[in-house]
Amino acid sequence: MRAAIFNGPRDIVVGDRPDPAITSPTDAIVRVTFGSVCGSDLWYFRGESPHSLGPIGHEFIGVVTDVGAAVTTLAPGDLVVAPFTYCDGTCPHCLAGWPSNCANGGSFGNRGVDGGQGEAIRVPFADATLVTVPGSGHSGATLRSLVALSDVMCTGHHAAVSAGVKPGDTVAVVGDGAVGLCATIAARRLGARRIISLSRNPSRHALAREFGATDIVAERGDAATEVVMAMTDGVGVDAALECVGTGQSMATAFAIARPGSIVGAIGAPHDVEVPIGTVIFRNVGLRGGVAPVRRYLPELMEDVLAGSINPGRVFDFETDLEHVVDGYRAMDERRAIKSLVRVA
Amino acid sequence: MRAAIFNGPRDIVVGDRPDPAITSPTDAIVRVTFGSVCGSDLWYFRGESPHSLGPIGHEFIGVVTDVGAAVTTLAPGDLVVAPFTYCDGTCPHCLAGWPSNCANGGSFGNRGVDGGQGEAIRVPFADATLVTVPGSGHSGATLRSLVALSDVMCTGHHAAVSAGVKPGDTVAVVGDGAVGLCATIAARRLGARRIISLSRNPSRHALAREFGATDIVAERGDAATEVVMAMTDGVGVDAALECVGTGQSMATAFAIARPGSIVGAIGAPHDVEVPIGTVIFRNVGLRGGVAPVRRYLPELMEDVLAGSINPGRVFDFETDLEHVVDGYRAMDERRAIKSLVRVA
Repeated sequence: MRAAIFNGPRDIVVGDRPDPAITSPTDAIVRVTFGSVCGSDLWYFRGESPHSLGPIGHEFIGVVTDVGAAVTTLAPGDLVVAPFTYCDGTCPHCLAGWPSNCANGGSFGNRGVDGGQGEAIRVPFADATLVTVPGSGHSGATLRSLVALSDVMCTGHHAAVSAGVKPGDTVAVVGDGAVGLCATIAARRLGARRIISLSRNPSRHALAREFGATDIVAERGDAATEVVMAMTDGVGVDAALECVGTGQSMATAFAIARPGSIVGAIGAPHDVEVPIGTVIFRNVGLRGGVAPVRRYLPELMEDVLAGSINPGRVFDFETDLEHVVDGYRAMDERRAIKSLVRVA
Repeated sequence: MRAAIFNGPRDIVVGDRPDPAITSPTDAIVRVTFGSVCGSDLWYFRGESPHSLGPIGHEFIGVVTDVGAAVTTLAPGDLVVAPFTYCDGTCPHCLAGWPSNCANGGSFGNRGVDGGQGEAIRVPFADATLVTVPGSGHSGATLRSLVALSDVMCTGHHAAVSAGVKPGDTVAVVGDGAVGLCATIAARRLGARRIISLSRNPSRHALAREFGATDIVAERGDAATEVVMAMTDGVGVDAALECVGTGQSMATAFAIARPGSIVGAIGAPHDVEVPIGTVIFRNVGLRGGVAPVRRYLPELMEDVLAGSINPGRVFDFETDLEHVVDGYRAMDERRAIKSLVRVA
């Protein structure tokens, strides 16, 4: 099969890889229909984080083509969404609702496991990992939103859930990347009354507003803090969603969070220092992390299929598998919010 | 009046201070009956944290002797417990349940406000700040537990509440100081099934067990982590209560917290680095801070008066106001868990 292969920073090629085959009775083989490029893929693309050489991509949807003898909930022909991590569904962490921390899990496109930027994948623990999409003949827009459920929408949702967003809240979303935009969807979905988007990029303001942002703050750092504090009468926001993962974005999130609130953080951290003084002296908490996508998928899929959320709108660049590196480049150069990869 | 006065590190004297008087219609004057020495008092006593020169002590109970014209819920003769911070009860933070972050509040024994280690105190915003103790003729044991409600018991409770302790949980309490011991009471009170006390000091094990600890771990650092992980079948604890405030205690708390759990932290931080990688990649949250004592006081006072919790047992050293420095020394030299100061 054809698949994207990471040979090192800025060196991604599409080449031949062995067709995946069932190796365990709990496996399924999925023919990928759409993959996508994650913001976190850019870290290794740029050489800023390590990544094993080989297959890449952890976001995909596809069609089941084969299942192992122990698989009971899936059959060939099923359209499925894959969370970006697989999980066994039976370990203490899975049972407690934290499938992305599965004791026997891992993420796709890592450590020899096939990636979502390729034609097919062997999915471990398929019953526990994959979620079947009901119905058929879904529109292109729906399919794009289903791809977004694989990671970015559930990750934005995790920021909002972690920060405890509740009806009537004033919420700040720090960052206007695809995750920040999806966190905006999530905050509105959870009932936030006012959503302040901290976004420097004017080209993203329209989408932020479409997703529910009521206010845009284009300032950065201390200036952004000043503006948000003034907007909230010096109180701060009820929930701050940190959707970048840098030291500055974390500092801003903590600075604008009101006492007793929680910073919901989902950005892969790079040079981030948690202001422990703010935690202790202002009672601002910190929660978040690698989203438990498998747990969130059913409820968010329901909303996607009902058309009440449209996270697929974050895909503003599209390419095919053979040109997947163009998708990376478009995001790296900030020409695109997020790149969709047509595979089959 | 007589009051303890901080002249600099290890230089605490008892001297004369002006008798406090009503200066605002919302003030009350309280004649202190018992004060106590807080673990955080040791930081400035040792010269490790700054403190304004002058009156000290933020933990006390006493009897109201005078009230301003606007005070409606208090009268001379009332026995009251003071939270270690005063609050106006009307600012957005107070209204949201965070009185220790009151926009117009402050802590006793700071910035010219009288301290609890003195004969009398002018209490600002008395209606909002003080909590009246019902009944009369309370035993010595009850009075000691009421003093503990001023800070240490509510602070231990805040660690447990912040970490989300719930019935059936396995909880680790990192630290065997007075706050850690009170956090043990709080964890049991909230229904924890198993309470692992990380305590190096054998002289404190009996009290930890009396308060509800089911297991004692005397190891430190990585060795402590190994033991706790083995005790929990490699899963980690449902809630980790960080009751020290050092880098090592925070690192241990994060290392033993299971994915999806929260570290409840209340120690004044000294050289603490939050392991952001654990936050993100293991979904371990961090909450806590300066306890909203005023909010917790009513429910905990009910339990003290019913005799179902006895946090006053942490006082294992007692002195009078004139010898208050002995109380500091006993704690500084780890001869005492916590010192009670008889004032009147």
